[in-house]
Amino acid sequence: MSEKIYIGVDLGGTAIKVGICDEEGHLLHTYEGPTETEKGPDAIVNNIERYVRLIVEQSPFDWEQVAGVGAGVAGFTNVREGIIILAPNVGLRDLHIRKILEERLGKPIKIDNDANVAALGEAWGGAGKGIDNCVCYTLGTGVGGGIIINGSIYQGFSGLAGELGHMSVVPDLEAIQCGCGQMGCLETVSSATGIIRMAKDAVARGDRTSLAQVENIMAKDVFDAAKAGDEAAVRIVNRAAFYIGKSLAAVAVVLNPEIFIIGGGVSKAGDILFDEIRSVCAKLTPEPVLKGLKIVPAMLGNDAGMVGAAGLFIRS
Amino acid sequence: MSEKIYIGVDLGGTAIKVGICDEEGHLLHTYEGPTETEKGPDAIVNNIERYVRLIVEQSPFDWEQVAGVGAGVAGFTNVREGIIILAPNVGLRDLHIRKILEERLGKPIKIDNDANVAALGEAWGGAGKGIDNCVCYTLGTGVGGGIIINGSIYQGFSGLAGELGHMSVVPDLEAIQCGCGQMGCLETVSSATGIIRMAKDAVARGDRTSLAQVENIMAKDVFDAAKAGDEAAVRIVNRAAFYIGKSLAAVAVVLNPEIFIIGGGVSKAGDILFDEIRSVCAKLTPEPVLKGLKIVPAMLGNDAGMVGAAGLFIRS
Repeated sequence: MSEKIYIGVDLGGTAIKVGICDEEGHLLHTYEGPTETEKGPDAIVNNIERYVRLIVEQSPFDWEQVAGVGAGVAGFTNVREGIIILAPNVGLRDLHIRKILEERLGKPIKIDNDANVAALGEAWGGAGKGIDNCVCYTLGTGVGGGIIINGSIYQGFSGLAGELGHMSVVPDLEAIQCGCGQMGCLETVSSATGIIRMAKDAVARGDRTSLAQVENIMAKDVFDAAKAGDEAAVRIVNRAAFYIGKSLAAVAVVLNPEIFIIGGGVSKAGDILFDEIRSVCAKLTPEPVLKGLKIVPAMLGNDAGMVGAAGLFIRS
Repeated sequence: MSEKIYIGVDLGGTAIKVGICDEEGHLLHTYEGPTETEKGPDAIVNNIERYVRLIVEQSPFDWEQVAGVGAGVAGFTNVREGIIILAPNVGLRDLHIRKILEERLGKPIKIDNDANVAALGEAWGGAGKGIDNCVCYTLGTGVGGGIIINGSIYQGFSGLAGELGHMSVVPDLEAIQCGCGQMGCLETVSSATGIIRMAKDAVARGDRTSLAQVENIMAKDVFDAAKAGDEAAVRIVNRAAFYIGKSLAAVAVVLNPEIFIIGGGVSKAGDILFDEIRSVCAKLTPEPVLKGLKIVPAMLGNDAGMVGAAGLFIRS
């Protein structure tokens, strides 16, 4: 066993997930431990180092086979310098993580933000395997995005390419303000947060809906109600899907991708969401651009971050 | 003089423009002759060959210095195979122009469509010189676009990336159908055709406007009236500018470009158009993406096609 292996680290606010990938993007071993955010930056870095060494020790591979360690971080990163600028949920700021980990581990280190890394994971070892150009949406608490061009993450001028949650898609009359300061961002309607808000609004204004019986509404409750035929819930799901479809259509004429990959918790709603997204996108996209275009669910789920982080060495 | 030179051909319905570029994107010599569309494909190809040989003979360069001949064509092209699929204004269809010209000229040939080639020209030797990632809009009879990533034209999955005129940006209630079949495309409002249509509508419904005195309204008449303070004309120009700004904002969060370059006949309106475009884009774009973003007029005018066609060898 002398082939190279790549380690992917998914650094989140609660857990650090570490995985070993081979050169084809197969995730071979994983380990998960607590981040221990409350103990501060030093403890977090110690944990990363410890989990990385531990997973290699527990695997049939030797430390010498480790060709690089990549990390995906929920927050703003300076990819070129290897700095975590701000990761609020992890409690890190201005941390030169590449330099620190290179010294501790003696291996090349690369970092990127979680949405980009998840996109790369799906493109390398998931739903986009074998496809060089794809656009990924992650529908979670917010809406994240990542653009893969010629197999690598496309960063743009200042590392902000693929901020798909902040496309302004909702018309002025219906728009609410987004956390980013703009009005009508995709994220305000098509994230879990947006779906929950619309459901609470429906209950508050007295719409006839089974959601009125739910105590602490989650996005999954809305999808379950919609699947059971609740009209208010169907309207909410269709509205979330409509604006995703509208955003896909805009991105389609700009980038002419072969595939859109849609992941994140909200995407688990399945056909009820995807059927509507596909139908709206088909309606709003010129036929030549639509031809051959695929809109598919993400495949790797929570593993996408680990796979993509490992993939930073192969594909970027 | 042993340096390499590159020939760029701009193949239009009326004229064939041929230029010699050096390796830095400087346009050194140009020649223009009639296309002679009416004489059919063979005559057109003969003319291209003749003009290319002629410009080199008239220049201080030797034929041996010609490293490649690129051509930009107003129409659909298959870049990989070097085929003009359909160029309605030139009267060409399914022409294997690369193969034919390679045999006749004994030089490597590359082709692309006119919007992509113009974008590459501006990126290589014009307003985007020295910048690797830019997005170009050409506001003419229609609205064309080209996306330059890492110095090369980005083609997308089926060669349709950058069809920016077909972004659906006009809200349903105001939308009219585009030639592409979709509703509310940018091209329906922000092209010369769209501006003329809005002006004729204003006159027809009896708006108080100096344009009522103009016999055959052109886009330039609308801009001139707007500059003279005609309120109806100002409204039309602002509307055209608004949707360009809205489209730029959407592209900005997707691609995070360093520069937008706006060319074509309509862009000659100058500040009255650009001030409004910049203001709208600033309003609709999240601040971090806006930071450092430049929105500038194209520099090369009608030469962009020749420069970009020559650039196909250096930058693609």
